[in-house]
Amino acid sequence: MAKGSGKYRPVSGMQLPRYSGICTFMRLPYLPAEQAEDLDIALLGLPWDGGTTTRTGARHGPRQIREMSTLLRSVHPTSGINPYSLLNCADVGDAPTNPVDPVRTMRMLEDFVAGLVARGAAPLSFGGDHLVSLPVLRALKPKQPLAMVHFDAHSDMYDYYYEDAKFTHGTPFRRAVEEGLIDPKKTIQIGIRGTYFATNEHEWCMQQGIRQVGMDELRDEGPDAIAAKVRATVGRTPAYLTFDIDALDPSFAPGTGVPEIAGVSTYEAQRILRGLRALDFVGGDFVELCPPIDPTGNSALVAANLGFEILCLLAESVAARKSGR
Amino acid sequence: MAKGSGKYRPVSGMQLPRYSGICTFMRLPYLPAEQAEDLDIALLGLPWDGGTTTRTGARHGPRQIREMSTLLRSVHPTSGINPYSLLNCADVGDAPTNPVDPVRTMRMLEDFVAGLVARGAAPLSFGGDHLVSLPVLRALKPKQPLAMVHFDAHSDMYDYYYEDAKFTHGTPFRRAVEEGLIDPKKTIQIGIRGTYFATNEHEWCMQQGIRQVGMDELRDEGPDAIAAKVRATVGRTPAYLTFDIDALDPSFAPGTGVPEIAGVSTYEAQRILRGLRALDFVGGDFVELCPPIDPTGNSALVAANLGFEILCLLAESVAARKSGR
Amino acid sequence: MAKGSGKYRPVSGMQLPRYSGICTFMRLPYLPAEQAEDLDIALLGLPWDGGTTTRTGARHGPRQIREMSTLLRSVHPTSGINPYSLLNCADVGDAPTNPVDPVRTMRMLEDFVAGLVARGAAPLSFGGDHLVSLPVLRALKPKQPLAMVHFDAHSDMYDYYYEDAKFTHGTPFRRAVEEGLIDPKKTIQIGIRGTYFATNEHEWCMQQGIRQVGMDELRDEGPDAIAAKVRATVGRTPAYLTFDIDALDPSFAPGTGVPEIAGVSTYEAQRILRGLRALDFVGGDFVELCPPIDPTGNSALVAANLGFEILCLLAESVAARKSGR
Amino acid sequence: MAKGSGKYRPVSGMQLPRYSGICTFMRLPYLPAEQAEDLDIALLGLPWDGGTTTRTGARHGPRQIREMSTLLRSVHPTSGINPYSLLNCADVGDAPTNPVDPVRTMRMLEDFVAGLVARGAAPLSFGGDHLVSLPVLRALKPKQPLAMVHFDAHSDMYDYYYEDAKFTHGTPFRRAVEEGLIDPKKTIQIGIRGTYFATNEHEWCMQQGIRQVGMDELRDEGPDAIAAKVRATVGRTPAYLTFDIDALDPSFAPGTGVPEIAGVSTYEAQRILRGLRALDFVGGDFVELCPPIDPTGNSALVAANLGFEILCLLAESVAARKSGR
Amino acid sequence: MAKGSGKYRPVSGMQLPRYSGICTFMRLPYLPAEQAEDLDIALLGLPWDGGTTTRTGARHGPRQIREMSTLLRSVHPTSGINPYSLLNCADVGDAPTNPVDPVRTMRMLEDFVAGLVARGAAPLSFGGDHLVSLPVLRALKPKQPLAMVHFDAHSDMYDYYYEDAKFTHGTPFRRAVEEGLIDPKKTIQIGIRGTYFATNEHEWCMQQGIRQVGMDELRDEGPDAIAAKVRATVGRTPAYLTFDIDALDPSFAPGTGVPEIAGVSTYEAQRILRGLRALDFVGGDFVELCPPIDPTGNSALVAANLGFEILCLLAESVAARKSGR
Amino acid sequence: MAKGSGKYRPVSGMQLPRYSGICTFMRLPYLPAEQAEDLDIALLGLPWDGGTTTRTGARHGPRQIREMSTLLRSVHPTSGINPYSLLNCADVGDAPTNPVDPVRTMRMLEDFVAGLVARGAAPLSFGGDHLVSLPVLRALKPKQPLAMVHFDAHSDMYDYYYEDAKFTHGTPFRRAVEEGLIDPKKTIQIGIRGTYFATNEHEWCMQQGIRQVGMDELRDEGPDAIAAKVRATVGRTPAYLTFDIDALDPSFAPGTGVPEIAGVSTYEAQRILRGLRALDFVGGDFVELCPPIDPTGNSALVAANLGFEILCLLAESVAARKSGR
Repeated sequence: MAKGSGKYRPVSGMQLPRYSGICTFMRLPYLPAEQAEDLDIALLGLPWDGGTTTRTGARHGPRQIREMSTLLRSVHPTSGINPYSLLNCADVGDAPTNPVDPVRTMRMLEDFVAGLVARGAAPLSFGGDHLVSLPVLRALKPKQPLAMVHFDAHSDMYDYYYEDAKFTHGTPFRRAVEEGLIDPKKTIQIGIRGTYFATNEHEWCMQQGIRQVGMDELRDEGPDAIAAKVRATVGRTPAYLTFDIDALDPSFAPGTGVPEIAGVSTYEAQRILRGLRALDFVGGDFVELCPPIDPTGNSALVAANLGFEILCLLAESVAARKSGR
Repeated sequence: MAKGSGKYRPVSGMQLPRYSGICTFMRLPYLPAEQAEDLDIALLGLPWDGGTTTRTGARHGPRQIREMSTLLRSVHPTSGINPYSLLNCADVGDAPTNPVDPVRTMRMLEDFVAGLVARGAAPLSFGGDHLVSLPVLRALKPKQPLAMVHFDAHSDMYDYYYEDAKFTHGTPFRRAVEEGLIDPKKTIQIGIRGTYFATNEHEWCMQQGIRQVGMDELRDEGPDAIAAKVRATVGRTPAYLTFDIDALDPSFAPGTGVPEIAGVSTYEAQRILRGLRALDFVGGDFVELCPPIDPTGNSALVAANLGFEILCLLAESVAARKSGR
Repeated sequence: MAKGSGKYRPVSGMQLPRYSGICTFMRLPYLPAEQAEDLDIALLGLPWDGGTTTRTGARHGPRQIREMSTLLRSVHPTSGINPYSLLNCADVGDAPTNPVDPVRTMRMLEDFVAGLVARGAAPLSFGGDHLVSLPVLRALKPKQPLAMVHFDAHSDMYDYYYEDAKFTHGTPFRRAVEEGLIDPKKTIQIGIRGTYFATNEHEWCMQQGIRQVGMDELRDEGPDAIAAKVRATVGRTPAYLTFDIDALDPSFAPGTGVPEIAGVSTYEAQRILRGLRALDFVGGDFVELCPPIDPTGNSALVAANLGFEILCLLAESVAARKSGR
Repeated sequence: MAKGSGKYRPVSGMQLPRYSGICTFMRLPYLPAEQAEDLDIALLGLPWDGGTTTRTGARHGPRQIREMSTLLRSVHPTSGINPYSLLNCADVGDAPTNPVDPVRTMRMLEDFVAGLVARGAAPLSFGGDHLVSLPVLRALKPKQPLAMVHFDAHSDMYDYYYEDAKFTHGTPFRRAVEEGLIDPKKTIQIGIRGTYFATNEHEWCMQQGIRQVGMDELRDEGPDAIAAKVRATVGRTPAYLTFDIDALDPSFAPGTGVPEIAGVSTYEAQRILRGLRALDFVGGDFVELCPPIDPTGNSALVAANLGFEILCLLAESVAARKSGR
Repeated sequence: MAKGSGKYRPVSGMQLPRYSGICTFMRLPYLPAEQAEDLDIALLGLPWDGGTTTRTGARHGPRQIREMSTLLRSVHPTSGINPYSLLNCADVGDAPTNPVDPVRTMRMLEDFVAGLVARGAAPLSFGGDHLVSLPVLRALKPKQPLAMVHFDAHSDMYDYYYEDAKFTHGTPFRRAVEEGLIDPKKTIQIGIRGTYFATNEHEWCMQQGIRQVGMDELRDEGPDAIAAKVRATVGRTPAYLTFDIDALDPSFAPGTGVPEIAGVSTYEAQRILRGLRALDFVGGDFVELCPPIDPTGNSALVAANLGFEILCLLAESVAARKSGR
Repeated sequence: MAKGSGKYRPVSGMQLPRYSGICTFMRLPYLPAEQAEDLDIALLGLPWDGGTTTRTGARHGPRQIREMSTLLRSVHPTSGINPYSLLNCADVGDAPTNPVDPVRTMRMLEDFVAGLVARGAAPLSFGGDHLVSLPVLRALKPKQPLAMVHFDAHSDMYDYYYEDAKFTHGTPFRRAVEEGLIDPKKTIQIGIRGTYFATNEHEWCMQQGIRQVGMDELRDEGPDAIAAKVRATVGRTPAYLTFDIDALDPSFAPGTGVPEIAGVSTYEAQRILRGLRALDFVGGDFVELCPPIDPTGNSALVAANLGFEILCLLAESVAARKSGR
């Protein structure tokens, strides 16, 4: 059984208008991280862009997602899941960071998430640039490498930038594979596209057995077929879900540092995610929203909505594990 | 026969550049509402957002649609219809409103539209929030409940907000059903999606026999199939067409108060609308454009273009009725 | 003595970066209004624009001010006052509203503020349109009419709009005078300017003895002279301070519904406010910020900074009263 | 006596909300130019930027000024003048143009304005780039060279651009001097500043006797002294007033193609203009607003307000001439 | 054999961050046009909008495309082509123009491109409005009429505007057909849609044998089928590729003067282009990006990416011709 | 004598329109840094924001300043100086950086500037955040501590952030004093204002003898008096000029990370700078422009213009030193 039976509920737009009140993720109560014992799922912000090699600003992501998430309601329209009645969920605030010290911040992020995990809360984090996924994966301390479902325009599997920079938003999963945090054979990447630095760009990924789904495959086969491939790749292995907003076409989510045209639609992303209820998720993140590039909030609204899809997947997984299913 | 044989024509961009001159809907002449005897179809603005529970600003809709409609030409590209040569159409300006008195404004809107209807002009109105559809339906004083073709992300069939608020932009069609203005069994809603307030969200609609088309159905079956369903639902019953811009995906029309991701594309909307020429429309509206949220005018351009589609449908219906077809 | 000795402190940007964490006014803790017994000053939002006759959106003001106020620090640069060490201050959230029912909302606002006042907290509220000042003044239930320091481009002393609309953002202080909430002879309005509806526009104000300071007077005499006039007008009468952002020139704060060019500079406003430390303030507000008109946040930053000036004035007054000075 | 005694009145914001209705200059009725016999002053748009050598878009100026002018009221706050009760004023629409044929458009503009002048209406035009002033001056067909009050960051007295381009927005007044339309000795330019192309930039102007007022002179002496200099320069010679929005500091009006920092404030401009009531104006224009550079409308609001100042000056002059004063 | 074997390479984002350095097309070296002997393909800007009849600003296109093209890498993801290693490519800057003299500028553009062609460099130009294609086609001096692949919402085959204006952005290809520069029977237009001026709008095109692909055909048959039709239409005739950004749906590229809703997606455009490798291209352009309408750069990013697709097609053609294939 | 006699000239807007061509600082030629022997003054970009503790994005500063600097001309309007005819000036591009490694980047910046200095070119750099001034000062390797003229809202003299972060954009000049690069007694800071972290905020500065000029002093005494104080403080000591854009009021330059209201006007800044011709400058910078916060370019235009003022001061100093004056 999960800890909670819906102790923390979002403020309803039927009671208090959506533009009122203090912004938290999904209008949930704010609960300091130290009190996470009470939580099954902790929603948190990782406001850091210290791994960004291009257009900066992902540090502002959590704030804008909190704001736009006030437009959401509580019940999933197709599955009927209300994650807040199923489990205890709350906003535990943002991890501390030191914006001028990348090395130290990597450790601060890991420690913050590890504290949540130690208290029994599964993390659903909002970035920040994609480098933040690495400390989260480290904090999860998986006994065996996790499977990974990875939405992204880029593989983020580069070895380094600038001669020897090992920790950037283009390299986190190379490190994660090296550190045994994720299993490349159970990793699938959806939305990969865009120009290459080199002709052998994805050679290493192929050698490791990572599965990449490009746009032609997605469009030719459709989202249901892709969801089936994800399920086949991951199986029953405990899995992490990471969603880089640049997987999406920039018409849906321009607010990101390295957009690539001709990407995934929000409908496709949603439909694929809705096809993953069978999997066993242990955590998730949504990253690379860069608010200064889209101050309208449109991209953040997408982030909030897809974050809710991930939350529902995670909630079902957590509830299932706790109920011994 | 219709009253007109093209007495009022838009200014052509081939004569006067599109950025010149005073902005009216479709660059039509402005004709005060009191002179509507001359008109078959009256284009009008309903600049009111007194029913808005979320992000406000739909009151500015008519102005921005007028501005962007100056980019349109006169002839429909697939049907070849030129509504302005078929009938007499003009811009009759905006209904009066009292922005601090919702109760009185409901009556002012109804009276204004009723005056047009009494003079024999079919109304094509631009909102304003979705509550404006209710006074328009009342003004039409239909002898029997109308059929309704309803594009929207939300059913707008809630009973109330905030304990007992019966008149909001989320409730107009509950009232319209109750008042016998529309026939729920001949009502079809396209584009319904987004998170729910409650698990039984659409129960009442289902009980009434309202037909809802969600995104999976639309994507799996395609717009032509949906158009056929609309035609089957409505039949030859006189029909009202209401288009809430949030039926569309926010990538096409971000300028609205309660956007829901993964929505209808403009192409799909256009193709469905183009499949409805057989129906008998008595009026229509395009609502919920919120210019402050999209000052670029992109959303308003969509509104103007889809407004032209509705105008052509309405023009064919009016011409057919008047010619005794 | 004041209740507090600095129980609630803003999060410091020296500890947690300013873009991190959940946004509250001045990065203060959030304390539910029911717990206001603990507070000397309650910072609150009044997210309502039901009195707005022009460009709407002031309902979004409190949220944007909260966000931009995260750029502030704790100590006043010229007076050295740290209001948070002097007294107990916290963010008590937003008043409830019913956006489709103006009459009821007026009462909801009054009740919310009255609850704070009853608990002994002086209100510093952020609007919302200027009509919100009326329920706040009512909630203060002054034994004798208050003096009022009023920054504004408009007198907001109209009798009515639209034949008989008595409650709009252009009429609150006419009502306040009629209801004996403020003393017109101890009311001074700074920044009055802009075109008139009628030649006798300000006749009633003059008859009542209201003091108006226009831009020529301000520029010719300078802010220190104006501050002296304010002090002379108000004297030791308990005073309310209301700041309509449109007092400022639109180059400093474009985000408002009815801007008037050639207005007060932020420097002038700041310098006048800094000259009012001798007065005895019982409450204050900052209103008419309309975020949809300035999504950049620049106007909200001005609101936050001038809000801090008002907070310091109010803190000194409250501390003085409580210490028996 | 003037023709009118206030036949045409703006729609009042006290009756119809400002965001309602079809946008005309000052919310005046639209009267086709052919009916200008009825008018004392014709407000018109000159939507053309064919003389622009830099950032383009001034063709969109009239539309945005019409929109923002809906925020104005009818009475001048310091002089008490209501130009609409004094005289007959209306919006006569925009001059026709051919955007791909500069030579022909110059003639079209002149003909349009000449038609108004022939019907006895004094022109107050809104640009368009500064080249439009030349056809207006030609259309006025002054018997003797006019005096000119010229607000601008640039003298617009260059001889040519690109080897031999004689007609650009940087050359109109060189042509006007050559053609005997204006008297350089009775021409005063206010706000001149910015980097030079050449060290002898203003030599020709000096030789002609043109009076230039830079920012140091304006700031050191103040607007009242400058107004006195304008009056001394112009005397009782019939005068034209041309206001290039780049005279203003870009913080007040960023929407222009060639902004120069450290410019005139709106307050200074207003105060100088208010000091010119003694002069005898025969026409005026407001030019170089470039809406694509400032889609917020803030710059256009400045244009509308200063346009109203010019309208009042022109109205007093026209009324005085007609009454034989 | 091509002249080059990769003499000029883009700066890599792996070495110098993408936001660093001076912006050129694709981060290539800048080489003055006079040194084009060294080049196989010259990338150039044609910053001119003298043919624009509607919303202006395409003159700013090259600058914004240069800026956004810094986000690109060197290798095509599906074909593996690196055009910079295959051939010598460089940015030769912008053609000179005279913005106030359309007639002269037409000649200046032609001369500039003719100079490049004479030096043996194939031109890939970035506009500018669509009229710039005409001088480019003239400069190519084709011995026989070229085939043309034309992406556009509009046919740009009007005879004239405004009575007799023969040279506008709506007429270039009528002139090109008349002048024997392109072969209408080998011309195919993709994306044609939008309201018509007249019912016989495309009659002339049909008579000439021009092939038009509208949105229904594209959506019903899919991009691969359309690519096959293009190949069938063009065959082995030397071909020109012109891409008007308004072929795309405004959700992908709002930054253009005459957007038409319900257009081509970037994915469709990309996939069609990728199906054209068999053709023999002699030049190409990308036009009608209007930066003032989309200052975010999103539209320019699309332009840069599709420009890279065109570059790869052109590079293969040039390499094939030079190697005697 | 200076090396140059005007070898490198900006492209004139009288020849090539300003929106044409590749953007460099002031439209100067680009000369790789290795060829700086030829230069008296090197204009360069320092695109790095690794010291930023708040809103990020200053890394994009150089690019936007290059773009907006194309609006400038060559001659100073009041002094008549043409720096490009006086000396050899060119754009040497941007320093290399490693955006994920602050420690290394500090060295890279220093090395790049040191290379210029070694070749005899005085650096005028555009940031980047204010931390970049420290490596520049180090690269200058002054024999004796430099005097410093410092425009800023903040003293940037903090000892550390976040416990022990010694290198941030709030600490550069503490380090510079410690390292003997600048002489605090010959340092003057203009524009200091805004809320404080602590009551003893500026104690250390006072102890060191640093002169701070706040807004009251500036407004009460005027810019000429302040310029005199600067001259008195600096004397004939070789001086560095650093201009943080947040010295300016946000109405003039909103594009910066930590704006403080009620700041210096551009006119005041310009007039103070114009009063400093007597000083002996050895280098200068303009920093903290954050383009994502002001994508309009208005702030960057201010940066370019004030950068030109600094360039003229530096040019006179360099020319004077070289001519032995």
